[in-house]
Amino acid sequence: MRVVLPDGRVEDMRSVFWDDGVVMIDQRLLPGEFRLFRAESVEDVAFAIKDMVVRGAPAIGAAAAYGLALAAVKGEDLEGAARTLGNTRPTAHDLFFALRVVRERIESGRDPVSAAEEYAESVVEKSRLIGVHGEPLVEDGSRILTHCNAGALATLDWGTALAPIRMAHRKGKEIFVFVDETRPKLQGARLTAWELLNEGIPHAVIADNAAGFYMWKGEISMVIVGADRIASNGDFANKIGTYEKAVVAKEHGIPFYVAAPISTFDFSLGSGREIPIEMRNEDEVHFFAGSRITPEGSRALNPAFDVTPAEYVTAYITEFGIFHRSELEKLKRMAH
Amino acid sequence: MRVVLPDGRVEDMRSVFWDDGVVMIDQRLLPGEFRLFRAESVEDVAFAIKDMVVRGAPAIGAAAAYGLALAAVKGEDLEGAARTLGNTRPTAHDLFFALRVVRERIESGRDPVSAAEEYAESVVEKSRLIGVHGEPLVEDGSRILTHCNAGALATLDWGTALAPIRMAHRKGKEIFVFVDETRPKLQGARLTAWELLNEGIPHAVIADNAAGFYMWKGEISMVIVGADRIASNGDFANKIGTYEKAVVAKEHGIPFYVAAPISTFDFSLGSGREIPIEMRNEDEVHFFAGSRITPEGSRALNPAFDVTPAEYVTAYITEFGIFHRSELEKLKRMAH
Repeated sequence: MRVVLPDGRVEDMRSVFWDDGVVMIDQRLLPGEFRLFRAESVEDVAFAIKDMVVRGAPAIGAAAAYGLALAAVKGEDLEGAARTLGNTRPTAHDLFFALRVVRERIESGRDPVSAAEEYAESVVEKSRLIGVHGEPLVEDGSRILTHCNAGALATLDWGTALAPIRMAHRKGKEIFVFVDETRPKLQGARLTAWELLNEGIPHAVIADNAAGFYMWKGEISMVIVGADRIASNGDFANKIGTYEKAVVAKEHGIPFYVAAPISTFDFSLGSGREIPIEMRNEDEVHFFAGSRITPEGSRALNPAFDVTPAEYVTAYITEFGIFHRSELEKLKRMAH
Repeated sequence: MRVVLPDGRVEDMRSVFWDDGVVMIDQRLLPGEFRLFRAESVEDVAFAIKDMVVRGAPAIGAAAAYGLALAAVKGEDLEGAARTLGNTRPTAHDLFFALRVVRERIESGRDPVSAAEEYAESVVEKSRLIGVHGEPLVEDGSRILTHCNAGALATLDWGTALAPIRMAHRKGKEIFVFVDETRPKLQGARLTAWELLNEGIPHAVIADNAAGFYMWKGEISMVIVGADRIASNGDFANKIGTYEKAVVAKEHGIPFYVAAPISTFDFSLGSGREIPIEMRNEDEVHFFAGSRITPEGSRALNPAFDVTPAEYVTAYITEFGIFHRSELEKLKRMAH
């Protein structure tokens, strides 16, 4: 991804990469501060996933892949490392997929780092292909709503939801992006806006509450979001708030696309009701930039994801092309 | 309203009252700090409305009423004072209603302060009656979603949306309130939670994004919100985000009530499309507690209200009772 560094230099950089250890753009600090986080142990990587130094299902998967390589390089037990890395965040399916794939490769004698690099390359290539397939859906003049950050930060490069947007802009299409700020952790305001700004794509950040208003005003022509896990019937989990946007989009006949690599599909689940939803610490709601916003004594509830039933999805944009809900069986066969 | 002061004393207090000037609970500072704001001039009152020392349509109306009394007491021109007070916030209908009513009373020779006090009493009495009429709708075991603050802070006492909730609790019904934090200005997290805590009503603050999730989970049995302006066809403007909640509530068959005094109805407007929507400063989105959350260079859009079409409203709870959409003509006749 194109990163404009604090000193004005422009670099092409991935959100997670190997450099004698696992290096990540520290997403907790953006956009105010650009700093790299270096993980020297499996525990560091697990901490980085849990504390959201790195976030986004595909990037979490790549971080776990590199974490497993780190364990192997250090001669540590892969079983234990996989357990430590797997016990970080429960919703994203890519995490478990990455651990299984990379562990098999390492256990079959592959060089651990190149096994992880190959996984990371595949993540990037899938995102690029999502961009290639999704770009034609983004018409000249599109006014696109996106929620959370399904960008290069979340997928090492290109993004899922942001890949078609990025490519449409690079092709010279005039587009405008409404960026849901995405409470409570503000991944939209902090990360998606940062990526769009680096790329020079016109955009405005809005309170999550304002998305419905702009749909009602007729100012949003399409919605593209990522996904953390997709059940075999097409129901999908994504950042909390996605469900509301999907329901309102359908009410207005606005196309609603889910961009995700096939690794996000969990064909073992019949429906979205089976996807485990992570409840995060209520302090993420109580405190904002170090200040308490709720009264002492009030409680908060903080689900990190919600489930959007497949009936609200116009189509899924994957590395193998665009699939409608009725075609998910075909996708399942391709995944095997 | 029941206010637990910082020193633990409990007082019965209104959000705006007359004490040789216009005194207001400073709603910008809650819940971290409890302080009274004293307006000594019409300009002070206009500032307090614009800067949201006082907010909520009925409380804004009462503050403007007292502001007009202040002008009269000081022998100032009522025409100019009404203009200054009217040029503060464009969406709430009560503001203009209060200015007209109180000005007529003063110009017909009434004592200015008692004219304003009478207006304030009527605001409180209407809220109390909204509570009386709405309370039976809140069944034992209800799990209620509310958005923004339509509480006593917004209406001097009782509240609009919170009046039925307060009364149901005082009657001993077991209820639980989901409080939308209400970005960007967090009136739910800051003010509604504070009122519910003072009253001892069980509640949890949620990111606005989580409301749809709890509806999907079947954990919300009713929604009650206030309104800033209601058109004659029942479309209504309320805090940004209300529209999304209404659409998702309908999708789940969850009853959605609008609690408002008749002064909130603007029968001169045919539909909600005619309600002017205030765009507030984009810094309310960019900055939080003094910290910038978006990248320097990103833009933001900050509509303060949205419009919810009448088709999403189960019924309107007013001081004259419960009205369905088909009965608004009857309500219009009562208003005259």
